[in-house]
Amino acid sequence: MGAEQDVFIVGVGMTPFGKHRGSSLEALGQAAVQAALDDAGIARSAVDEAICGSGYGGPLIGQRVLRDLGMTGPPVFNVENACSSGATAVREGIAAIRSGRSDTVLAFGLDQLTALGGGTLPLADADVEVQNGMSMPALYAMRARRHMHEFGTTREDLADVVVKSRRHAQHNPYAHFRTPTARAEVLAARMIADPLQLPMCSPTSDGAAAVILSAQPSGSTPVRLAASILQSGSADVAHDLAVSELGSRVARMAYEAAGLGPEDVDLAEVHDAFSIAELMYYEAFGFCAPGEAPAMLARGDSAVGGRLPVNPSGGLISRGHPIGATGIAQMCEAVWQLRGEAGGRQVEGARVALTHCSGGGIAGLDHGAAAVHVLVR
Amino acid sequence: MGAEQDVFIVGVGMTPFGKHRGSSLEALGQAAVQAALDDAGIARSAVDEAICGSGYGGPLIGQRVLRDLGMTGPPVFNVENACSSGATAVREGIAAIRSGRSDTVLAFGLDQLTALGGGTLPLADADVEVQNGMSMPALYAMRARRHMHEFGTTREDLADVVVKSRRHAQHNPYAHFRTPTARAEVLAARMIADPLQLPMCSPTSDGAAAVILSAQPSGSTPVRLAASILQSGSADVAHDLAVSELGSRVARMAYEAAGLGPEDVDLAEVHDAFSIAELMYYEAFGFCAPGEAPAMLARGDSAVGGRLPVNPSGGLISRGHPIGATGIAQMCEAVWQLRGEAGGRQVEGARVALTHCSGGGIAGLDHGAAAVHVLVR
Repeated sequence: MGAEQDVFIVGVGMTPFGKHRGSSLEALGQAAVQAALDDAGIARSAVDEAICGSGYGGPLIGQRVLRDLGMTGPPVFNVENACSSGATAVREGIAAIRSGRSDTVLAFGLDQLTALGGGTLPLADADVEVQNGMSMPALYAMRARRHMHEFGTTREDLADVVVKSRRHAQHNPYAHFRTPTARAEVLAARMIADPLQLPMCSPTSDGAAAVILSAQPSGSTPVRLAASILQSGSADVAHDLAVSELGSRVARMAYEAAGLGPEDVDLAEVHDAFSIAELMYYEAFGFCAPGEAPAMLARGDSAVGGRLPVNPSGGLISRGHPIGATGIAQMCEAVWQLRGEAGGRQVEGARVALTHCSGGGIAGLDHGAAAVHVLVR
Repeated sequence: MGAEQDVFIVGVGMTPFGKHRGSSLEALGQAAVQAALDDAGIARSAVDEAICGSGYGGPLIGQRVLRDLGMTGPPVFNVENACSSGATAVREGIAAIRSGRSDTVLAFGLDQLTALGGGTLPLADADVEVQNGMSMPALYAMRARRHMHEFGTTREDLADVVVKSRRHAQHNPYAHFRTPTARAEVLAARMIADPLQLPMCSPTSDGAAAVILSAQPSGSTPVRLAASILQSGSADVAHDLAVSELGSRVARMAYEAAGLGPEDVDLAEVHDAFSIAELMYYEAFGFCAPGEAPAMLARGDSAVGGRLPVNPSGGLISRGHPIGATGIAQMCEAVWQLRGEAGGRQVEGARVALTHCSGGGIAGLDHGAAAVHVLVR
């Protein structure tokens, strides 16, 4: 991406994630959009086009959000890519600017999972794996079992991901769960899909997040998008469930595009839909060697104050996971961190942030999408 | 768009449109994708990324289509923009190439409206206009009434759009309705929303269409995308229902981008969701003066063999209208026409084609999206 038009994030905003049963999905989106516009210090009329990412918002959701803000005239459309929907919206916004089509793009994401009735995500029952019970918790339970088998990872390690997550999230006013917890408390929780217990699973959240992308830097701390990579999975059902081939591939491509390596990353927001996933991504992204994730966690390397803080926001497990909003909320967090505005969860001196979304997977295996963005100040 | 990277359509393919109750939506998409790859003469592995447009296909539809073709690894995501979903997918494909991200992009669109139960399109019941009965036929009936009031347009004019449509479609092996009809037959049909009778409304169709976009021309008759414009409506409820402000705006922007005017257009595929719409678009696109559309039709100017053939494919009314596929099917027709491969419906010597999608509208008024593409050989 070296010689191409630089793209900057000049505004970010989001709603608190949580259960917003009294709010419409449109109202959540509008609050996030307005917050991002306010943060960028621009008027609604300054937006050249808008792209909305949503997993379950349905037809015309982004259009309705903007209509009631009076943002009509410029193009707006929706993208859907399951848990990568928000990140895909940002990627399309980058292309809109790089192609010369627009200067200022609004990318936003939203979902209201409480409206779906709660529980695990609705998956396409046309898929044979889904018909046979391959829900998301079941898939990640298999991943956890395999990681335990190969590397000696323990239930305690899986619980400690949650403990770190809540410790970070207590300082995040946007997080769904902000109360610190302890290993024993996590291990006493209800079993969802052995060995995954309730707090090890990201919750059913509602929320929205938005970023303003621009061809020009602005503000005191411009944040540049140094890489934007999207890939789909290999659909290789014979792959090792304890290893994310897709995660490794997308990170490798992002590092190459940014001209950086894992040693340059100051913080990462990764797709910890389940606690085992966070550990797998330490390994997939080169933050540690294969099998070393539990040790990295135990040393405190991935906690705020450590060598490479992961999910300072609390991640999906504590900030929450309203599908289409998640990828953009990760970028909001990254921008706040790079600007030094992250309060009690601040990663001191952060200069390079990596954000990563994965899923939904079709059939839940390693197919599906993954997106990695690298943000640099 | 002058100095930017040229983008070419190097392959097109579609399924016949109609009622495909025995087929899955995925299978329809796969047939169209394979036909476009075959037409381009490239392997599945030559595609750098894929974008799927669908109005009602639901989460992960495009991903499932490609998974079962073994086209996994490269990015794939869905876009939704109601009746402009397919055209939006092509627009994103153009940006993917212009931004330097990809060289070869598959854009495809699909929907299976018979799976929705038939009848008029399901609209968002969150919209107050929808709650009050503003279905699509009702909106276009109001448009027709207003056009009749302002310009003296008649029921016979509305019927004659259908007669021309069927006359063209009899030569189109992909069309939903291929049997010629007569004015008296149309005027004897069931009333849907006065003055619109059944044949004046586009049908509930199933189908898929695909194009291969490339940074390099190939084949004996390369077709270049000279303009790709998407806009949203003004949401001005006080506007004149007989005039498409959105259509005029998007066409004006497309002409400017292409460096052409309406006098240069050799054929157009326009969004005749209802017969009144085709007449309104003659006027909005500068094919004739306001109020002159019925006369243009009566002179045969918009028929194959006339000055500016409109909807040589049969348009939405006869080819059919599987939402997400429509915008891409229009481009398939345009490419076949520009290559001289359109058989009995060939527009002789065609060099410039315009394709136009509009809608879904939120609330059915002039908000919603419209897209115009200009294709040049």
